[in-house]
Amino acid sequence: MKVAVLAGGVGAARFLRGVVAAVDPAGVTAIGNVGDDLEILGLSVSPDLDSVLYALAGRSDEVRGWGRADETWNALESVSELGGDDWFRLGDRDLGLHLVRSEALRRGEPLSAVTARLAAALGVELTLLPATDDRLRTIVETRAGAFSFQEWFVARGHRDEVDRLHFDGADSAAPAPGVLAALDEADVILIAPSNPFVSIGPILAVKAIREALENRRAPAVAVSPLIGGRAVKGPADAMMTRLAGGTAPRQVADCYKGLIDALVIDEADADGAEIPGVRTIVTRTLMDDADGRLRVAEAALEGAAALR
Amino acid sequence: MKVAVLAGGVGAARFLRGVVAAVDPAGVTAIGNVGDDLEILGLSVSPDLDSVLYALAGRSDEVRGWGRADETWNALESVSELGGDDWFRLGDRDLGLHLVRSEALRRGEPLSAVTARLAAALGVELTLLPATDDRLRTIVETRAGAFSFQEWFVARGHRDEVDRLHFDGADSAAPAPGVLAALDEADVILIAPSNPFVSIGPILAVKAIREALENRRAPAVAVSPLIGGRAVKGPADAMMTRLAGGTAPRQVADCYKGLIDALVIDEADADGAEIPGVRTIVTRTLMDDADGRLRVAEAALEGAAALR
Repeated sequence: MKVAVLAGGVGAARFLRGVVAAVDPAGVTAIGNVGDDLEILGLSVSPDLDSVLYALAGRSDEVRGWGRADETWNALESVSELGGDDWFRLGDRDLGLHLVRSEALRRGEPLSAVTARLAAALGVELTLLPATDDRLRTIVETRAGAFSFQEWFVARGHRDEVDRLHFDGADSAAPAPGVLAALDEADVILIAPSNPFVSIGPILAVKAIREALENRRAPAVAVSPLIGGRAVKGPADAMMTRLAGGTAPRQVADCYKGLIDALVIDEADADGAEIPGVRTIVTRTLMDDADGRLRVAEAALEGAAALR
Repeated sequence: MKVAVLAGGVGAARFLRGVVAAVDPAGVTAIGNVGDDLEILGLSVSPDLDSVLYALAGRSDEVRGWGRADETWNALESVSELGGDDWFRLGDRDLGLHLVRSEALRRGEPLSAVTARLAAALGVELTLLPATDDRLRTIVETRAGAFSFQEWFVARGHRDEVDRLHFDGADSAAPAPGVLAALDEADVILIAPSNPFVSIGPILAVKAIREALENRRAPAVAVSPLIGGRAVKGPADAMMTRLAGGTAPRQVADCYKGLIDALVIDEADADGAEIPGVRTIVTRTLMDDADGRLRVAEAALEGAAALR
């Protein structure tokens, strides 16, 4: 079975582990967010792609919830001591990946090609594609000014209320090689339980990807990132409240208007959750262990199968 | 007292610790070798400057003999796993410095300015200047081909006999700001116990520096890097044998013909060590502790004082 998954960071990484437990990884293509990529200390960092890589390679730190397991922080400590940019947490093992990727990009290798090499080296079996090889950056507009995503999220601790988002470079960004084919050939299209605005939004900002979803032949199922109207982690609920008018399933579905056929929601959100034109699939969506990841993946896949 | 010291890597770093124990560090300027600098993984690495920085900051690993104390190697392990360039040993703490320096150089800051900032951040009291801010690279010519210094030294384990050296960029390299003033204003000029060919040679390949030594007003004293005709570490003895015809004090002095007034040699090399035009100063030159470092520095400084 061929499955295409639009994927953000940590939540998507967990969901994808469920998907590859449910179906053959060889048929799974994850289309990853690059809107929160950044350049720091001369390095090209792709936090969401790396969350997927590390999780699928079994290298992620499950307790901290991000970054690599068995991580150390000595390089950054040295950067701090020497007055360098130390606001973005880069661990030593993680740095090794950024060094390899940054050098390859500087040599002119496209991000999709580097990502494929890194995934192969780490033993990741699904196909991970960046949404685009072109530069695309999420800009968060707030009363305090416009910030790059990481500046807003990490450096300023996402304390500024978001008035608007825009995706720098999206107008001219082309889907990375393989993205449109994956969406076209998919038996099922899934949208991972990621922040609709800053994780999935940048992917859908690539016009040809949005059009591919609008004109999909396969059923598309999104998984809500909210449980009881709250984000498991991060600012999704605050952004939904401010930018979508609320945190009910209907508002999540509205973020994907015309792009999905069904929405997987948590039991806690099931009461009165009818959404015109979108089927709701109710399960427990917390993915805090392998059973949970598989349950959510199977709910989405079975929901899609029922729609075919 | 003002002291200018031409300095290579680890041997020079030990000697400089002796010099700053003997005289006020505020008057000491080290002029460092950049011929063995390299670019790897997108980083600009200056191994000799860093050996001096780490030693003078009390951060060097005295057991391993190079690099930083309390070092870890997780980034490089990750680079290896991902198929990146891993032949040059970069520790995690060391990497932090390379990241900060490389970013500054990429922004257009001269190496001398970055080095001054790093030295200040590490609490190094002497002035450390690179011989030049321009690109200057030691190229080692062997029967197997021509190699950059680190390629020959590290990647090939200095197994190829050296036929000739040349210093790429030396013809157009200008002394870094402060270098000529330090040599001009010095009460004493010292040449540290470093490899005359690959550590001091690149510094002297900068024409204006060589001329400043030729036309010196202050006495100049070199310290031989050989003990009993053998290098304490590294290939200096093999290179002396092949390129200078032997490892006696006379041959060391010949490497600095017209540039020094005295040579500090070890007791083991004292027999029949008369050198026309160069006074010999005999002491025990092994610097394996603070006493040894101070002894060698004082021998050189007192030898210079006797010449004034």
